[in-house]
Amino acid sequence: MDTIQKELLQAVSGLHEIPVGAYNIRTNGKTEARNSTEHIEIVPREQGDGIVIKIKPGTKNESLHIPVVLSQAGIKETVYNDFYIGDDCDVTIIAGCGIHCGTDDSSQHDGIHSFFIGKNSRVKYVEKHYGSGDGKGQRIMNPETIVEIGENSYMEMDTAQIKGVDSTIRKTTAKLAEHATLKVMERLMTHGEQRAESRFIVDLNGEDSGANIISRSVAKDDSYQLFQSVLNGNAKCSGHTECDAIIVGNAKISSIPEITANNSDAALIHEAAIGKIAGEQIVKLMTLGLTEEEAEEQIISGFLK
Amino acid sequence: MDTIQKELLQAVSGLHEIPVGAYNIRTNGKTEARNSTEHIEIVPREQGDGIVIKIKPGTKNESLHIPVVLSQAGIKETVYNDFYIGDDCDVTIIAGCGIHCGTDDSSQHDGIHSFFIGKNSRVKYVEKHYGSGDGKGQRIMNPETIVEIGENSYMEMDTAQIKGVDSTIRKTTAKLAEHATLKVMERLMTHGEQRAESRFIVDLNGEDSGANIISRSVAKDDSYQLFQSVLNGNAKCSGHTECDAIIVGNAKISSIPEITANNSDAALIHEAAIGKIAGEQIVKLMTLGLTEEEAEEQIISGFLK
Repeated sequence: MDTIQKELLQAVSGLHEIPVGAYNIRTNGKTEARNSTEHIEIVPREQGDGIVIKIKPGTKNESLHIPVVLSQAGIKETVYNDFYIGDDCDVTIIAGCGIHCGTDDSSQHDGIHSFFIGKNSRVKYVEKHYGSGDGKGQRIMNPETIVEIGENSYMEMDTAQIKGVDSTIRKTTAKLAEHATLKVMERLMTHGEQRAESRFIVDLNGEDSGANIISRSVAKDDSYQLFQSVLNGNAKCSGHTECDAIIVGNAKISSIPEITANNSDAALIHEAAIGKIAGEQIVKLMTLGLTEEEAEEQIISGFLK
Repeated sequence: MDTIQKELLQAVSGLHEIPVGAYNIRTNGKTEARNSTEHIEIVPREQGDGIVIKIKPGTKNESLHIPVVLSQAGIKETVYNDFYIGDDCDVTIIAGCGIHCGTDDSSQHDGIHSFFIGKNSRVKYVEKHYGSGDGKGQRIMNPETIVEIGENSYMEMDTAQIKGVDSTIRKTTAKLAEHATLKVMERLMTHGEQRAESRFIVDLNGEDSGANIISRSVAKDDSYQLFQSVLNGNAKCSGHTECDAIIVGNAKISSIPEITANNSDAALIHEAAIGKIAGEQIVKLMTLGLTEEEAEEQIISGFLK
């Protein structure tokens, strides 16, 4: 890998070198490196571009890294990754995509990740998106995450679009069985003329299932963000979505959450707030010696932490 | 007026007799009684069914009653009422519609109310909807309220659908000028197979305009409710919507609020909660000697007060 690829890899996955455990590193549309372990098997997908990951029942405290790096401009790819996670697992999956654009050609990565989680398992899924380079080509990423959480299992999603992604449509759909839990923490920042859309559709199908979706976003300059969530309570369940957004400059933000109780034992809550940083917060930090820009930056980084 | 008409009139407007001040009482598609005053003039609309109400600038502490009663089954009417409210007014407008269905014929009242409010005025608008009678005919009411609130003016809407309305689509659109304020308190109860949809579209166009929309609803039995609101912050403004709903029985409720900040000085908040009555609340009241049904009834009536 060259310097740009290494930089992207570090930004999206925190990796400086080949990781321990199972991994699949994809660069410029091809597999750069792949490693299966005793419990985590990675094989190419039979149809379409992508991989199939099979995690054996009882796999505990193991991790899987699947970063994607596009350093060559003009690549457009759709990749399907399917994750089959057995019963009684406890695993961490670190995905991420970094695009570098040095020319006028746009690059686009559409990653469709499907998770089939068995019973009594815990899955932590971390996904970072990052763009760099001063080419005029657009850096486009459209991640789609499809999740089926089995009985008594827990899925935690920690997703972040750090910076440099010009256009993104993020879709997450989840179906929860009995006693299943979904926790999502999404962090988004857009600047310049960037556009970001984030959509969630969560079906709380099983008794005592629960979902907690938190989205925090900052829209700067002339960027645009749309947050949309649909939470369907189809059984005795609890659901909560929270969408907090900060506007800086001329940015525009829309938030459209939908909660539907199809069962009288569904308890659903939504909260959303859009606004700019309170003037007094800025002033307070400025009295401590920061410039206005530094104060704003500090508040934003705390908000997105 | 006959006994049924008098009962409906009382249910929707609290009136036992002809009110003081300006009024227009409409029964079974015709004007039953009308009275203009020195400051409030009521004239028939030139086009379409309905009336035009002109409230002179400076009119203070006056009220206007415009109840509608349908006691005869099988009536279907669309009525347009236009309100022109001058500068520096402080008035209360009491509208309402009662439908009695004694046969298999459905009755429907679609009332389109347009308010054009001048500067520095205060308007309180009270609207109650009620249905009665044991006929199989549907009692249908589709109220539409269009509001333009002038500079520095205040509009308060207090709307309630008490009971007995089989199908309703409620639409409210409002445009606010500088320093204008809109406050809405909506209370809805549905039972049996009833359907209720409530939609708000509020444009906060003027600097320092503000809107506070609160919807409280109870859906019983097999009824269905949809709450939809769109709050557009187009200037330095503040907006808040809150939608709390209680489910009883097999009822279904959807809440789809949308907040959009088109200006970085717009501060918008939405909150929504759907759930059933907490079991401990029922138990607590039962220990005071109430039956389960009485306890439930008491909690609901407190929630909708």
